[in-house]
Amino acid sequence: MNCPFCPPLAELTTFAETPCFRALYNIAPVLPGHSLVVPKEHIRSMLGLNENLLYEMVVFSRKIVQVLMKAFSCQSFDWTIQDGTEAGQTIEHLHLHIIPRHSNDLAAPGDWYPAMLQNETAIIDSALRQKINQAEMVKIVSFLKETYIKL
Amino acid sequence: MNCPFCPPLAELTTFAETPCFRALYNIAPVLPGHSLVVPKEHIRSMLGLNENLLYEMVVFSRKIVQVLMKAFSCQSFDWTIQDGTEAGQTIEHLHLHIIPRHSNDLAAPGDWYPAMLQNETAIIDSALRQKINQAEMVKIVSFLKETYIKL
Repeated sequence: MNCPFCPPLAELTTFAETPCFRALYNIAPVLPGHSLVVPKEHIRSMLGLNENLLYEMVVFSRKIVQVLMKAFSCQSFDWTIQDGTEAGQTIEHLHLHIIPRHSNDLAAPGDWYPAMLQNETAIIDSALRQKINQAEMVKIVSFLKETYIKL
Repeated sequence: MNCPFCPPLAELTTFAETPCFRALYNIAPVLPGHSLVVPKEHIRSMLGLNENLLYEMVVFSRKIVQVLMKAFSCQSFDWTIQDGTEAGQTIEHLHLHIIPRHSNDLAAPGDWYPAMLQNETAIIDSALRQKINQAEMVKIVSFLKETYIKL
């Protein structure tokens, strides 16, 4: 499996988990704190989750919002899913983006969105993607793990 | 109350509801089918919902996705929340955008996002906003009501 949201790759980026979901730090964040919530099972669409799993996902995701707001000292966030090829989904594993936001962090509030799509496309070509280095990933994942435990 | 997501304004655009949520057709859709799920209570943030309400919202929203996929014959959708001023939230009433997507409906898959922000800002100035006319709204709301009931 080369899926970035499944083990073994996802093990390096996971900072919190429930029985059926994990929260990952994005290897190519469009803004500091850009994280993902994904099901452990390699499911493509939100339509593939039953109601119990939907509940587990939304409650966990909201907790991840609180972790990120604390860790990145912010009051605002973006929360988005692109479900399906026509919506720009390029990695065929359901993922909810959570992005902490700060005043004037981008020229216009909506600029993260094209940047995110660009990164998600670029991820396929490892020569193009702008990813954070491994030492930085270890540091941020460890910090977010601690924040999650203390919440 | 001048909030577009509260009565009386919301009564004209609502096509489905649960005890605590309603689904509205957007008065200025960025693409056909662009709808919103909002709590009936005038709450600003997703952080203001308890876990029962979160569950009600996510299960209902997923059902609205299915309504829109059927009504607009598509397989893909965008699902997004901007929570907080720094994320570009301009109407202080929590709202989840659900946008059905089709192949090549926009020049680039991410183009709906800046368009949505522009519309949401323009909504404040009624002279600027591009809204659909009332006859069209009545027609689409009635069609979506039927689709929801039959689902």
